[in-house]
Amino acid sequence: MSEPEKSENIPDESAGKGKEIPNGGNPAKTKEDFDLAAVYVSDAQYNRNIYFDTSPQAVRLYLLYNHWLSKVLLYFFILLDLSLAIFEEPAVFSLPIWATMLVELLCLLAFTIRLVHYAKVIPRDKFWKDPKNICIIVTLMLTLVDMIIYGALKATNCYGVRWSRVLRPLLLINVTEGRQLRRAFRSIRNALPQIFYVFLLFMFSVLIFSLMALKLLGKRGLKTIDGAPYFTNYLEIVFDLYVLVTTANSPDVMMPAYNASFVFAIFFIVYILINTYIFMSVFLAVVYNNYKKYLKEEVRQLVRAKRHKMARAFAVLQEQREEGGELVVTQANWNQVVRLVRPDISNAHRELLWSVSDDKNQGSIGKVAFVQLADLLNIEVITLKSRPHPLHSLCPAFYLSAPSRLLCRIVQHRAFVIVYDLIILVNAVFIGLDEENPMIANSEWVFLALYLLEILLKLYVFEPRAFFSRHSFWNWFDTIIVISALIATIVNSAMKSSGGYTSRQILDIVFILRVLRLIRVVDSIQRFRAIINTLIRIGPMILTFGQLIIVVYYVFAMLGMELFKGKVKFFEDPNDPAKAYCGNPLLKDTAFAQLNYCKNNFNNVVSSFILLLELTVVNQCSGFATVTHISARIFFVLFHILVVIVIINIFVAFVLEAFFVEYSVDKSDLQTSLERKIEELELAVEQYVTVTTRMFEADLDPEDFAENDDQNGNFANPTFSSV
Amino acid sequence: MSEPEKSENIPDESAGKGKEIPNGGNPAKTKEDFDLAAVYVSDAQYNRNIYFDTSPQAVRLYLLYNHWLSKVLLYFFILLDLSLAIFEEPAVFSLPIWATMLVELLCLLAFTIRLVHYAKVIPRDKFWKDPKNICIIVTLMLTLVDMIIYGALKATNCYGVRWSRVLRPLLLINVTEGRQLRRAFRSIRNALPQIFYVFLLFMFSVLIFSLMALKLLGKRGLKTIDGAPYFTNYLEIVFDLYVLVTTANSPDVMMPAYNASFVFAIFFIVYILINTYIFMSVFLAVVYNNYKKYLKEEVRQLVRAKRHKMARAFAVLQEQREEGGELVVTQANWNQVVRLVRPDISNAHRELLWSVSDDKNQGSIGKVAFVQLADLLNIEVITLKSRPHPLHSLCPAFYLSAPSRLLCRIVQHRAFVIVYDLIILVNAVFIGLDEENPMIANSEWVFLALYLLEILLKLYVFEPRAFFSRHSFWNWFDTIIVISALIATIVNSAMKSSGGYTSRQILDIVFILRVLRLIRVVDSIQRFRAIINTLIRIGPMILTFGQLIIVVYYVFAMLGMELFKGKVKFFEDPNDPAKAYCGNPLLKDTAFAQLNYCKNNFNNVVSSFILLLELTVVNQCSGFATVTHISARIFFVLFHILVVIVIINIFVAFVLEAFFVEYSVDKSDLQTSLERKIEELELAVEQYVTVTTRMFEADLDPEDFAENDDQNGNFANPTFSSV
Repeated sequence: MSEPEKSENIPDESAGKGKEIPNGGNPAKTKEDFDLAAVYVSDAQYNRNIYFDTSPQAVRLYLLYNHWLSKVLLYFFILLDLSLAIFEEPAVFSLPIWATMLVELLCLLAFTIRLVHYAKVIPRDKFWKDPKNICIIVTLMLTLVDMIIYGALKATNCYGVRWSRVLRPLLLINVTEGRQLRRAFRSIRNALPQIFYVFLLFMFSVLIFSLMALKLLGKRGLKTIDGAPYFTNYLEIVFDLYVLVTTANSPDVMMPAYNASFVFAIFFIVYILINTYIFMSVFLAVVYNNYKKYLKEEVRQLVRAKRHKMARAFAVLQEQREEGGELVVTQANWNQVVRLVRPDISNAHRELLWSVSDDKNQGSIGKVAFVQLADLLNIEVITLKSRPHPLHSLCPAFYLSAPSRLLCRIVQHRAFVIVYDLIILVNAVFIGLDEENPMIANSEWVFLALYLLEILLKLYVFEPRAFFSRHSFWNWFDTIIVISALIATIVNSAMKSSGGYTSRQILDIVFILRVLRLIRVVDSIQRFRAIINTLIRIGPMILTFGQLIIVVYYVFAMLGMELFKGKVKFFEDPNDPAKAYCGNPLLKDTAFAQLNYCKNNFNNVVSSFILLLELTVVNQCSGFATVTHISARIFFVLFHILVVIVIINIFVAFVLEAFFVEYSVDKSDLQTSLERKIEELELAVEQYVTVTTRMFEADLDPEDFAENDDQNGNFANPTFSSV
Repeated sequence: MSEPEKSENIPDESAGKGKEIPNGGNPAKTKEDFDLAAVYVSDAQYNRNIYFDTSPQAVRLYLLYNHWLSKVLLYFFILLDLSLAIFEEPAVFSLPIWATMLVELLCLLAFTIRLVHYAKVIPRDKFWKDPKNICIIVTLMLTLVDMIIYGALKATNCYGVRWSRVLRPLLLINVTEGRQLRRAFRSIRNALPQIFYVFLLFMFSVLIFSLMALKLLGKRGLKTIDGAPYFTNYLEIVFDLYVLVTTANSPDVMMPAYNASFVFAIFFIVYILINTYIFMSVFLAVVYNNYKKYLKEEVRQLVRAKRHKMARAFAVLQEQREEGGELVVTQANWNQVVRLVRPDISNAHRELLWSVSDDKNQGSIGKVAFVQLADLLNIEVITLKSRPHPLHSLCPAFYLSAPSRLLCRIVQHRAFVIVYDLIILVNAVFIGLDEENPMIANSEWVFLALYLLEILLKLYVFEPRAFFSRHSFWNWFDTIIVISALIATIVNSAMKSSGGYTSRQILDIVFILRVLRLIRVVDSIQRFRAIINTLIRIGPMILTFGQLIIVVYYVFAMLGMELFKGKVKFFEDPNDPAKAYCGNPLLKDTAFAQLNYCKNNFNNVVSSFILLLELTVVNQCSGFATVTHISARIFFVLFHILVVIVIINIFVAFVLEAFFVEYSVDKSDLQTSLERKIEELELAVEQYVTVTTRMFEADLDPEDFAENDDQNGNFANPTFSSV
């Protein structure tokens, strides 16, 4: 429950150990050796944890397994499988059953191939020990069984439920290399026992307050706004007070009692203080504390596994310079491996990395220095600053002339930024004004021209590859937005002048792009930039939470669609009399219908997802209990517990932790030593290490290799357990 | 802005230094010396930071200033002053103006006396340097001026506004020894700049989204549910989207766009993700980070101040045993001082403390050991366990007889607790049933008898003073609840049998007490006890936040009453036609009136407070903008920013920090050494150190005395700056 599961153990040391014996001769390394070492290094760099066979053909299969194309294909099939919900009944776009079934079979086939491929790569006994694989196999089998049953039922015109659809997200968790997603699920699972005890106490408090409310208010003959008796049924009270914690029915639930006497308001105030404020904070504290604790442990194991792999790569490459001397890796061998791992990096960059590792200039490095390589490769070095502008090389006479130099000075001046910030502000006002006015409409061309001019000027002044380097977020953002806006505006005015017809969609895109252009202004304010940069940096991790949310939403959407499909209908036609009660007579005169919530339904997967998002923000579900049964509320309470109390709190904990790290962390030693070297060479360095790794990596002793933990043949592998 | 203000500096070392000179002779200490030392120790123990004159009469005045009676009187007058709002127009209970004026004058007089007393205690130059005192004087003057103006206006029947009422909470902050409240305000003020930048960015995001919404949705001719045009006015959109962040108008604000096309839902989803989830988490992160940072610094200074004071007490008491030897305090002098500081503790307890301080048994202690005294006095030691039961001393033959011993064993057995937990559960079911049934009504007597029996049995088995020790929360809770329930039930049935008439109020109290009795069950579950104990321990700090909230609520209530009094009326009579629109024709057919929110108004201070609490939970204010002006929304947005974004986040940060400390903190060294001593003496120790102090005290070197920081005569006093 608390320990990451230990599978894929017993590292296959034979390949490395075999090379250790020929000490004196130092036989030349074969191509297979370099391939193997490169795979180890690359695994360490990307934190992959797969214990593949070390035979040359297994290594080749393993390379294929990790190839970007096979990963893209896998994600495509998962996406296809998940998006089938759009076409299956209740569908957004209806397709015949045989079509969706066929596509699903194709997906299942693709997952099976992937699994077989994986089984070929790793030793057989390891394959069967891994719960992840068992989980995939069971899911595939169950899906197949369900499809057969459903097909048979449909063929005989019986009613059938595609219950295996709730299993689909399991594939997203287990089939992909979605380590972070699995880690997030594990961290939830680990936090559950503690959350559970607080939850029990919280529910106890809700039950006690409900009992008190029943006794205090039940016999007073109060009426709700609908004229129903107020607080007379215990279970109703429990539910109402639970919803009050989500603040959804505040202050409505309190008004009848408050109207009777203001003394009763005290009851609700105490309730809100204890249950909404204190208990919800305690939930956050428990989730946050567990999150930190387990994440720390997982990251520690990840770092240990990385070092272990680098040590294995070292064992493959090691040589002994003199009899009884230290085992080392020579620069030639090191170069060979780095070239295999990262064919894209320049010679200068590679030499820089070598000079950081071999800081005493001995021509060879020991184990400790070699192990750093995986981290060194993860530090983004931009070697472009020293590179001259292409125009400078092409026609230096022109580029270095006085007017050209003046232009460069102007563009680099602070005033240039300020002028463009003012232009953006003026543009914002123009956007706010009525665009039907021809003067305003034409001004758009002026602004577009100004923005284009800015980008061109910057490209003239700065080296284009530096300008469009991988992490110059704002340059990319600017250019993409301006060019898209240019294209969309041209298309729009072409359509307008040709047929006098304006496509609403294109106009919408033009508007959105225009407004997005304004965001750029935050980049010129130092304080804002710091906050935005942190947000951009935690972006990838937010995507992990996105996946987590999608998994949970998908399961609830599938359940919800089975439970509530067709119960609440939305009518496009405003004159349809059924529109007033969402096509369900049970909803006549309810607040749900009066507030025009008819489109909040489970009639297809898209509206289900939107409804679930609304429920995450504010848990309003009265309508669905009305159209089905009072017990439908259980579905909504479960959803609230899982999403709001657990997942949103983990999300908040994650953002908190990321900001604290931004506030407190210093650069790693490695980065500092790299920067020192770079300063000598006058290069620019940019930081690119994922946040979570940085959070706890500092705790680990650099001399601590995984082998030390390995004496009993058990290597704690943090990524190989499934949900 | 960032540093706590340094006033009351330049410690008056003369008293202490004077004693340092007569080394050889070691003259006997005078009574004044002991008094002075006792005042220093007691100040250190309770973290008081007042630099009083050291002359004997100033010390006597200072003792009077710190006397509990003068503090109670002060709090009484503050409470009286604040509660005047109940009697002033718009009043809950109306009193003539001369009466409230007279009471307010009395309060002002009391505050002036307190201030004069304070001025006598501390040196004059220090008094005028302290912004707290200036603030009090200005507040008193302004209040007086306002009262004169208002009285004159009323006398001539003109319209007057008692604007100085918003200043009243300033007295709560500054007059009292409410150090924690001032610290909380300072921590808010310190966090403001950082919060402000995030807030600007957040508002920028809201403005950009609003502009996009205007462009996308404004021209589509959509209608809200009231038939008003949807998203056509920019400022309206900004406000609506701001309220969406508080989740108050979700999903209503999105429904018209969503009904038009589900694509627009994406806009709202992105908005909610960025502004509700990410920005609100960033606010929490910023507030939390600042809170930790400044609290840490403040507590560090507090601990330093405490050590400084103990060092001064040491300087008063110190002697030199032999020529050139270490300066020490003898056991006799130490005993004398401890007796003065804590006359209530027993000789055994005092000897225990001495044996912890003088662990080498030398008969005297040095400075480092002496300084610990303040903390030692704060550790609650229960010396009662070793004390025999009074019955054991009175009639040992009976108390030690076999049946009596069997009874003791039964009561102490685990099964006894389980049996009573079961009784509580059965009782819960009985409470839930209809109490009009005579069988159920009579069962209440059985349960009361059972609970009384339990308390009596426990008192028979456990030593009564141990049972009712200061921190046996649950024993106190149980006894008070059961005895109150007994009294209330007897009164109730007496009234019933005498006149057949049941007082609703008494019945309510009986019901509440019955239900509260059930809470006891959580104490028998270990996991729950841990959570509850943490909550009880942070209780006093939650009270500080209560004061903080009351200060902010009071100011907003006073403002709100001036702005909105009488605009929305509540009618008790359900047949009054004006009830349907809250007595204001402008509210006809608005959601505000339809939902029967008429009692949510600013017509008196009580309903203002309740309304402000509702606004804290969910910010619904449409009604008030309708009855006055659209700009009334500013009041509500300001309230939301201050209370929800700043104060609630600080509250959450505080609860988080308290729980993390509970999860991680070990006992202090001092406590461990005390416990070791106690084990030898077979006593029980109970932990009672306030949470915040424990949070950071461990960071400080125990040899680090304040004198070291004091070279330039500047002693950073953390408690003497005002808001």
